[in-house]
Amino acid sequence: MHGLMMDRPLLISSLLEHGARVHHDTEIVSRTVEGPIHRYTLAEARARSCQLANALTKLGVEFGDRVGTIAWNTHRHFDIYFATSGMGAVCHTMNPRLHPSQLTYIANHAEDKMLFVDVTFVPLVEAVWDALQTVQTLVIMTDKEHMPATKLPAVCYEDLIATESDAFEWPTFDENTASSLCYTSGTTGEPKGVLYSHRSTVLHTFMMALPNVLGANDRETILPVVPMFHVNAWGIPYATAMTGMKLVMPGPGLDGASLTELLNAEEVTIGAGVPTVWLGLLNYWREHGASVPSLHSMVVGGSAPTRAMIDAFQNDFGITVLHAWGMTEMSPVGTVCRLKPSISDASEDERHTLQLKQGRAVFGVEMKIVDAEGNELPHDGVAFGELKVRGPWICASYFKLEESRAHDDDGWFATGDIVTIDPDGYVNITDRSKDLIKSGGEWISSIELENIASSHPDIAQAAVIGVPNEQWTERPLLIVVPKPDRQPTKESVLAFFEDKVAKWWIPDDVLVVEALPLGATGKVQKIKLREQYA
Amino acid sequence: MHGLMMDRPLLISSLLEHGARVHHDTEIVSRTVEGPIHRYTLAEARARSCQLANALTKLGVEFGDRVGTIAWNTHRHFDIYFATSGMGAVCHTMNPRLHPSQLTYIANHAEDKMLFVDVTFVPLVEAVWDALQTVQTLVIMTDKEHMPATKLPAVCYEDLIATESDAFEWPTFDENTASSLCYTSGTTGEPKGVLYSHRSTVLHTFMMALPNVLGANDRETILPVVPMFHVNAWGIPYATAMTGMKLVMPGPGLDGASLTELLNAEEVTIGAGVPTVWLGLLNYWREHGASVPSLHSMVVGGSAPTRAMIDAFQNDFGITVLHAWGMTEMSPVGTVCRLKPSISDASEDERHTLQLKQGRAVFGVEMKIVDAEGNELPHDGVAFGELKVRGPWICASYFKLEESRAHDDDGWFATGDIVTIDPDGYVNITDRSKDLIKSGGEWISSIELENIASSHPDIAQAAVIGVPNEQWTERPLLIVVPKPDRQPTKESVLAFFEDKVAKWWIPDDVLVVEALPLGATGKVQKIKLREQYA
Repeated sequence: MHGLMMDRPLLISSLLEHGARVHHDTEIVSRTVEGPIHRYTLAEARARSCQLANALTKLGVEFGDRVGTIAWNTHRHFDIYFATSGMGAVCHTMNPRLHPSQLTYIANHAEDKMLFVDVTFVPLVEAVWDALQTVQTLVIMTDKEHMPATKLPAVCYEDLIATESDAFEWPTFDENTASSLCYTSGTTGEPKGVLYSHRSTVLHTFMMALPNVLGANDRETILPVVPMFHVNAWGIPYATAMTGMKLVMPGPGLDGASLTELLNAEEVTIGAGVPTVWLGLLNYWREHGASVPSLHSMVVGGSAPTRAMIDAFQNDFGITVLHAWGMTEMSPVGTVCRLKPSISDASEDERHTLQLKQGRAVFGVEMKIVDAEGNELPHDGVAFGELKVRGPWICASYFKLEESRAHDDDGWFATGDIVTIDPDGYVNITDRSKDLIKSGGEWISSIELENIASSHPDIAQAAVIGVPNEQWTERPLLIVVPKPDRQPTKESVLAFFEDKVAKWWIPDDVLVVEALPLGATGKVQKIKLREQYA
Repeated sequence: MHGLMMDRPLLISSLLEHGARVHHDTEIVSRTVEGPIHRYTLAEARARSCQLANALTKLGVEFGDRVGTIAWNTHRHFDIYFATSGMGAVCHTMNPRLHPSQLTYIANHAEDKMLFVDVTFVPLVEAVWDALQTVQTLVIMTDKEHMPATKLPAVCYEDLIATESDAFEWPTFDENTASSLCYTSGTTGEPKGVLYSHRSTVLHTFMMALPNVLGANDRETILPVVPMFHVNAWGIPYATAMTGMKLVMPGPGLDGASLTELLNAEEVTIGAGVPTVWLGLLNYWREHGASVPSLHSMVVGGSAPTRAMIDAFQNDFGITVLHAWGMTEMSPVGTVCRLKPSISDASEDERHTLQLKQGRAVFGVEMKIVDAEGNELPHDGVAFGELKVRGPWICASYFKLEESRAHDDDGWFATGDIVTIDPDGYVNITDRSKDLIKSGGEWISSIELENIASSHPDIAQAAVIGVPNEQWTERPLLIVVPKPDRQPTKESVLAFFEDKVAKWWIPDDVLVVEALPLGATGKVQKIKLREQYA
């Protein structure tokens, strides 16, 4: 027997319409690619999204068509998010840091009908233009005054929408309709497309806004450094429309000085980004005696914060670190590390150590851990195995690979992360399954060794890889980037591990390097390290 | 084109399972009908819900069967909520304050297969038992020691579940499946059943937990005085399972002394109830010099708080009033009155006056106002007409009246409330459409007159009705209950309206009475006043 409630779909256009009505004066502030600060309200964002939807309709964009973007976090990208999805097209965000050949592959695989690019990325598009097989219209996201000289047949964004009506009747359709597309930057094989739906996006937005997660509301101001080309900036633009949370977007200005200026000027209360960016920010604050008094929380995702980062934000600046974890395949958020009230009484050391864990599952994401044979393991904080997840915003299969489903027979998605889950539900990633080091028939966690190395006073960054070893199969090798003017010795570093891990976990060697190879999303590319140091 | 996300249904069992895993030690504290305080955790609540689901299965409760309850807010009612809905049956809560003939009508119309009743209501059930046509099993919600003497073939709740396994595999089914049933206590005609679904309930829970609404999380403790038989206690039990918010339930102890003791003992931070109960609480606090320092917010719904109540909570006790509005047909919440940040700078008088409004639409509820011809009116804070609503937790039709849908041709539900909506989205109910007073071809708002009268220093409660008048069609009559030891005169009361409303709005007469007739949900029964004073 069915309930007798209205059959109203969950649509992204409803988020924008709600925001424009109930939070009409909520500001969206962007550092533009052109330089100046741009500000508009949710009501104005809605008007411009309607103008853009009218323009796209005239350009022949139809229901289900993919519209590509290669762009920074700015108001124009915000317009495009809502205009494309709202009209029933698919917003396909691309990562400009990918290799041009990967970008070409992705745009062709997605069959993007249009492409929106920031001025910054026009040379990139010029380099790949002839290889793009489906793009009919190229729009440069700027005004007439700032249009770059290019031989490409490009349209100017502001000209495109200027004469359009700011009224557009968003169509009503099945909430399972595709809304946006994001390719995973897989370290092996071709990138694969995760195709989000309106339903998954709206449900994920509800979850993100909860007090136990972001706590989004119209008294908060958030600055997502996490790019809009990276899993929809973790859903933050949608949360702004749902809750009226002020949104501040940094455009291309991701250095410490630009971020600090913008954070202070707009009195940002929550930041969201990857550890690499926050490390740069912390270094800038220390060097310049800077701070951002309005900030109360820093969401850290993409990879885990170090203990040193948690200590610095919380002790030196009074900013709570919210360690979050997710995947492109998970829309992305699966866990967030907020301390349970019962843990509030623990010592600072215990609390900060707990924050190294990825946190507890958000409502909507079911989790289990399994051993190599698929047997379910207890949530005792000790047993470790692969994390599997299930829920309405988790990938079932990849775009144009529908026949090869992404989940197992029981509908669970294998994350590739090796984790423990403690009795309170805190997930701790001990490793990526492919990064585990197999030594003497046992597993060594590269991440745990990296965390320890990172807390060494002379070390700025650390990576641990397994190198082939005749006797033990693999042995851990530690590669470190020293802090400025520090020269860590192998002996001092290895001594640092004593009493912290089992003796056989201690790396066999330490290499000091100037920098670690980073991938397009800012993560250390262990595959490159393995190639180099095998 | 559909997205490629997992097709996982939104189910009430997922709320309980999430709570029992991630917030396993969140407490649910009840003042029992037997007297003592009972406390258990979400993990224990899940175990007992599983025991009950096993018992219900043995008793022959099947998918879609209705299971009735006549009960206070306690842990056993919590068990029943989750066991019945979780297994695919329908939890049908009944209001014990209804007339026995209405209760009988409702239980028979719903075709309740089982009935759970608190000890308090055994005499009530004895009185109607022979008229109940479908109830096969009667369960009294207590333990063996407290089983009352009754000739009815009654089962003891604790005996029923004691020997059952605490493992139960909640079935997975369509999220549109009916989950619970609540009849509206209509002032005209027979009560009508609103049949909620798992989808509507989970979506409503997401909304309720948002920071702009309840702000539910594991650092808050809520005491719903609003009964679990009244629109699922506004969804608060579900919010506890989703977010780990501690839940404190008052059982039958709704007097000022009992509530104050429980609020303080459990350090409650949020209260939720109707103005009548809060008025009693405020009076108790004043008489006994009591207070509840942990309370920061009071949700007031069911009917509007008076200005005097807002002033008292906020100025005398430092507790923020959250005026919320909804209907049984809306699951129930449609608006909540939180002040926009831009209004924070307004004077205290302006802020408190704004809080008399019902607030802004929550995400998920669309609103429009229409005139008598159905034309849409502007949201300018001046134009008033009937409020229509639409959304995934709003009633489409009534139980067993599916052919006569509850919405108009465009899918909108007519609330029967006459409102204005200001440019910021704040809804202000000026009247029920049936309570408007038509005088000289114009409308007079009875609610606005009542609000003014209630702020008179000698008046405790006020009601305004229209009485037939040959010249003007209707004229307003004011009926007031004086404060203790006060004797308001007609002249002083009518003078109080001058400069506050147009001269022709001022009531023609003032009647001083000892009490106003209240309905089963604590609202003033204007229909009785009209009969009496016509």
